[in-house]
Amino acid sequence: MRPSGRAADALRSVTLETDVNKYAEGSCLVAFGDTRVLCTATVEDRVPPFLKGSGRGWVTAEYGMLPRATDTRTDREAATGRQSGRSQEIQRLIGRSLRAVTDLSGFGERRVRIDCDRLQADGGTRTASITGGFVALHLAFQHLKRLKVVPAVPIRDHVAAISCGIYRGTAVLDLDYAEDSAAEADANFVLTGEGGIVEVQATAEKSAFAQEEFDRMLALARKGIGELVEAQRAAIAKGP
Amino acid sequence: MRPSGRAADALRSVTLETDVNKYAEGSCLVAFGDTRVLCTATVEDRVPPFLKGSGRGWVTAEYGMLPRATDTRTDREAATGRQSGRSQEIQRLIGRSLRAVTDLSGFGERRVRIDCDRLQADGGTRTASITGGFVALHLAFQHLKRLKVVPAVPIRDHVAAISCGIYRGTAVLDLDYAEDSAAEADANFVLTGEGGIVEVQATAEKSAFAQEEFDRMLALARKGIGELVEAQRAAIAKGP
Amino acid sequence: MRPSGRAADALRSVTLETDVNKYAEGSCLVAFGDTRVLCTATVEDRVPPFLKGSGRGWVTAEYGMLPRATDTRTDREAATGRQSGRSQEIQRLIGRSLRAVTDLSGFGERRVRIDCDRLQADGGTRTASITGGFVALHLAFQHLKRLKVVPAVPIRDHVAAISCGIYRGTAVLDLDYAEDSAAEADANFVLTGEGGIVEVQATAEKSAFAQEEFDRMLALARKGIGELVEAQRAAIAKGP
Amino acid sequence: MRPSGRAADALRSVTLETDVNKYAEGSCLVAFGDTRVLCTATVEDRVPPFLKGSGRGWVTAEYGMLPRATDTRTDREAATGRQSGRSQEIQRLIGRSLRAVTDLSGFGERRVRIDCDRLQADGGTRTASITGGFVALHLAFQHLKRLKVVPAVPIRDHVAAISCGIYRGTAVLDLDYAEDSAAEADANFVLTGEGGIVEVQATAEKSAFAQEEFDRMLALARKGIGELVEAQRAAIAKGP
Amino acid sequence: MRPSGRAADALRSVTLETDVNKYAEGSCLVAFGDTRVLCTATVEDRVPPFLKGSGRGWVTAEYGMLPRATDTRTDREAATGRQSGRSQEIQRLIGRSLRAVTDLSGFGERRVRIDCDRLQADGGTRTASITGGFVALHLAFQHLKRLKVVPAVPIRDHVAAISCGIYRGTAVLDLDYAEDSAAEADANFVLTGEGGIVEVQATAEKSAFAQEEFDRMLALARKGIGELVEAQRAAIAKGP
Amino acid sequence: MRPSGRAADALRSVTLETDVNKYAEGSCLVAFGDTRVLCTATVEDRVPPFLKGSGRGWVTAEYGMLPRATDTRTDREAATGRQSGRSQEIQRLIGRSLRAVTDLSGFGERRVRIDCDRLQADGGTRTASITGGFVALHLAFQHLKRLKVVPAVPIRDHVAAISCGIYRGTAVLDLDYAEDSAAEADANFVLTGEGGIVEVQATAEKSAFAQEEFDRMLALARKGIGELVEAQRAAIAKGP
Repeated sequence: MRPSGRAADALRSVTLETDVNKYAEGSCLVAFGDTRVLCTATVEDRVPPFLKGSGRGWVTAEYGMLPRATDTRTDREAATGRQSGRSQEIQRLIGRSLRAVTDLSGFGERRVRIDCDRLQADGGTRTASITGGFVALHLAFQHLKRLKVVPAVPIRDHVAAISCGIYRGTAVLDLDYAEDSAAEADANFVLTGEGGIVEVQATAEKSAFAQEEFDRMLALARKGIGELVEAQRAAIAKGP
Repeated sequence: MRPSGRAADALRSVTLETDVNKYAEGSCLVAFGDTRVLCTATVEDRVPPFLKGSGRGWVTAEYGMLPRATDTRTDREAATGRQSGRSQEIQRLIGRSLRAVTDLSGFGERRVRIDCDRLQADGGTRTASITGGFVALHLAFQHLKRLKVVPAVPIRDHVAAISCGIYRGTAVLDLDYAEDSAAEADANFVLTGEGGIVEVQATAEKSAFAQEEFDRMLALARKGIGELVEAQRAAIAKGP
Repeated sequence: MRPSGRAADALRSVTLETDVNKYAEGSCLVAFGDTRVLCTATVEDRVPPFLKGSGRGWVTAEYGMLPRATDTRTDREAATGRQSGRSQEIQRLIGRSLRAVTDLSGFGERRVRIDCDRLQADGGTRTASITGGFVALHLAFQHLKRLKVVPAVPIRDHVAAISCGIYRGTAVLDLDYAEDSAAEADANFVLTGEGGIVEVQATAEKSAFAQEEFDRMLALARKGIGELVEAQRAAIAKGP
Repeated sequence: MRPSGRAADALRSVTLETDVNKYAEGSCLVAFGDTRVLCTATVEDRVPPFLKGSGRGWVTAEYGMLPRATDTRTDREAATGRQSGRSQEIQRLIGRSLRAVTDLSGFGERRVRIDCDRLQADGGTRTASITGGFVALHLAFQHLKRLKVVPAVPIRDHVAAISCGIYRGTAVLDLDYAEDSAAEADANFVLTGEGGIVEVQATAEKSAFAQEEFDRMLALARKGIGELVEAQRAAIAKGP
Repeated sequence: MRPSGRAADALRSVTLETDVNKYAEGSCLVAFGDTRVLCTATVEDRVPPFLKGSGRGWVTAEYGMLPRATDTRTDREAATGRQSGRSQEIQRLIGRSLRAVTDLSGFGERRVRIDCDRLQADGGTRTASITGGFVALHLAFQHLKRLKVVPAVPIRDHVAAISCGIYRGTAVLDLDYAEDSAAEADANFVLTGEGGIVEVQATAEKSAFAQEEFDRMLALARKGIGELVEAQRAAIAKGP
Repeated sequence: MRPSGRAADALRSVTLETDVNKYAEGSCLVAFGDTRVLCTATVEDRVPPFLKGSGRGWVTAEYGMLPRATDTRTDREAATGRQSGRSQEIQRLIGRSLRAVTDLSGFGERRVRIDCDRLQADGGTRTASITGGFVALHLAFQHLKRLKVVPAVPIRDHVAAISCGIYRGTAVLDLDYAEDSAAEADANFVLTGEGGIVEVQATAEKSAFAQEEFDRMLALARKGIGELVEAQRAAIAKGP
């Protein structure tokens, strides 16, 4: 039995609210249950030095946390003077995941920066960030298309992410914080709309786990990501 | 004529939404028009070293900005490695303003930290932060009172803040960004519910201004802060 | 009765010693009683990026403190690795105040940097810095005029600053440290030679204060700044 | 055909040289082909705050790089003033992997710090670090056992790591730099001696990959890690 | 012929003005020609961790520079966020030199901190700092003696410092900046009143120099330091 | 009697192993007894700004330490966020020493960076770094010569370094850590192959020392450096 009473293969309530920022080229407030992340996409007319003259663009992400997003207040990274290793790890993951489905040749020498700021945390921040960041990115490209800066939205497929875990011996989908802190193993899966694997991060929390357990988690992730992709489609169709 | 069409003495639409964070002891999402600041209050059972053993508490604030709160994206302070001087100046102002109406002897050796994070900016962020931060602080004290940690809410009076400016030769209330960037002078006033002055910061933007202009701005501020205090009363009465 | 025995409207002894640095284009050692600040002006042949190609110049300030300028030694900011928020707040105030009386179109694309280093502190450091910084700036422009780099000193009016406070219920001029740490309110006024307001920063230290108290402080400031402007005139007339 | 001429399932030449540092409680210079990492274990008689009074110990890792470990010199992290996100990500992975096979209740309130410094890089640094770090950790515990500080080496199983990739459409074992920079996908596997999964990090480099490809990589990793565990056994048996 | 017209064995004009800071336990404004350093001594009732419980004290130094102490303005170290390697090297030298003549058992578990701030630079800053820092230290100990905190001034001998150089083939004493920047070799000597060597730092600027040149520089240093010690005696005798 | 049993004028066993890094243009693993430093030379096709357009090159050094190079682990400088003053002092010394024998006009506008990383420490790290860094530098220039980038190795003479000390009243050569921590005085000498003085750093550890003691240390250094230069010749002759 899960603390939330959810079935093993049930996502939390997922919402993807678009057009939540008056300045950003694309924006999405994503909620996975009580986890809420504000994603904005900023289009810049320049690329990092290694791409200058290449005709290609780039997509990066930055991740931040409001101090009281968590039960116990977390020190503000701007005040401590540096981003934690965990923040950097998450933002690199978001960037890699979004680039995996983006046609980097399709929007000129531009950089899209996805800012994912965690307003409230209850497990699954990084997977919500990827899922909502994709929506913000897509909306920003729609915006460029409307302005005739690009002929088409340079995105080849959806990408979304979900966590799974082994909780009290059972594989479960979309861990909330209560489960995450007690799970025997947890894994984050980033998959495309067509089911291709973009990224897997699986970690044994107490002792090693078996391949069958891994396989069960992956199967759950496929189901959950299918549902997330549907939600993305609906959010994107509405447009900004 | 103001760009927004407002009368010289008209506030923008002001909302103070409470209970917007499931963890914080008090929280308030304040909007002054398109300016939106998320304020949370965190109660800690310890005080800064200079108060240890004094039996007294303390109230401080921290100020942050989401990168795309502004028309042009601002670099994340956690990434640049330090808070800007402006952020520090604002958070010290918020803290001073809230302490001015708090009975620091009335809640034991505790520290309340007010986090004000700017989600979207359109002028007046610091005044919105003080106004909304007061609500978050009051709700946190109500929370302590319900838990019987304190016998009464240790707040002596309301405190709220508003900006005024000289725009095209006329004193106007509650500058938005379009006015702020073109004003001849601007001033931030922090007043109590009873009309006492807590803080004045007045700056000539182009050349010096006259005492009469200052007096007219202060009169407008009195009117606006009267309305803000009414809004605070309503928000606090609803409770968290 | 003031601790120093001064009348409520009496400045401390003020001196403005010029030509105290063999390298700087302008320099002034300013003393307000025991408060001593060394001000130097450095002329650079370049401007910040936002002014490139504009034909206009800029004036900025930096503020520093010797560790034992205070009764209890203060950690060196270079050793702690960052300027305090207070230092940044002060240096931004100095810069704004000096720019308010400078004709930024009158000296080409140059930057004048005013360094104000507090050698000894006894209250009123920021007001002494503005008052002495003005002299250093004026001398630097005189230097450029003698070199025929500029046709005239591009300064439109004097600017000087003084603090006032409500001390034991009475408005007093030019607080020293003993008064400053016990005052009910304190305010810094930056005025031009003609009496225009450049900046006001007024803060209630214990509880809010009334508008009449503010007005009395401003009247005292006018008197004090009149005397400071006379001292500036004398210092500038002597030249470097 | 692999650039090195190796078979798809062939490791590079692996050596685990022990006792390479006269001060460390355990040390191992690990080579995976031209990749060389110096691993040292330091035993400290204190634990992080969250374990004080728990009777349990902790194992952490730090990762560093000599500037010319790479073909193009990399700036020294001490000179740039911070560890890169990548370094932090790697050292957290090493720590988690080693803790997964350590009995943290078996050596009192002590911390063992594993320093992994990359002397030369040719792909697979993090997997070499985990594999060699395990040897350094084991030797340190043997040292504590000889001193009768612990009754037995508090390690439950081996742990080792290897990378795999999809290179020109084929799954291959133990990527060197030439393969790593051209692979379609790459994955790092951390497994125990008994074959349990401790950590999986799989990343699509260009486009998503299929589950069958993932499974083939995992099978290769099992084979390679079997060989690494044998090499660890030999190194540990010799002792320091 | 030296640029200043001085004889090869002539010091610049040296002054040691005491009691220049109203707060410091000891203070001295030292001038070697146009080089001016403000030295203050601060007595603290605590020692660094490695001396706790030892009954012994410690003497350290910190070195700072006003930005316009030099012909071309130097960036403020507080603004760049760190002390330069050169500043740290100088302050460690000052501390070592002063400790070499101090009886660290003679003033309890206290730390004396010597702040040396360069107001104006014209060569020889570090030697002026040591020479003036000694005076500030002695005055602070005299102060402790008057307060009966120590029975006697815990200083065993004088210590002073001077630079020498090979300038156009000739050994000269007390280099000013014009000589320092053109010298073939330069050396800093720190000697005691009795002529013992505390520290030697000799550097070839263009090519190596011969032992005889070194010996000639040392002989000049002996003469110069003899004169500096006389000046110290006079300054100390006057007392604060 | 020395702790190691060595004669007063005996070096420890010295080895200079070349070609220890597959990427660096020159490399040398130097050992002075148990002190081991890995030196690599990196040639870059650009110079610092002050040399642009001069046609001349530059040689710099950076110094690093593995955390467990010492008996007690030292915190990693990348983790503490800055290089210590001591590290900066050492790397500046290495750079100055190598430049003193290099013909900076002989290799175009290039910079050679010498990285000296201390793998294990037992006294004399900086002298080993200079001695081994010279070999790495020479090999890098040989490499440029073979590529016909330079017509000849632009080095005018050897440079090597050794420490001496006064240990229990006797001058001894090449201090190991046991001696270094107990010596009454210690000195580092950097000399050329022809015996010219490049740098002297002599420090009294407890009380001042006499000129005769200094002279005896210098004589020992001459002998030791003669032997080091022979070892350099052999290492360089073998080539990379």
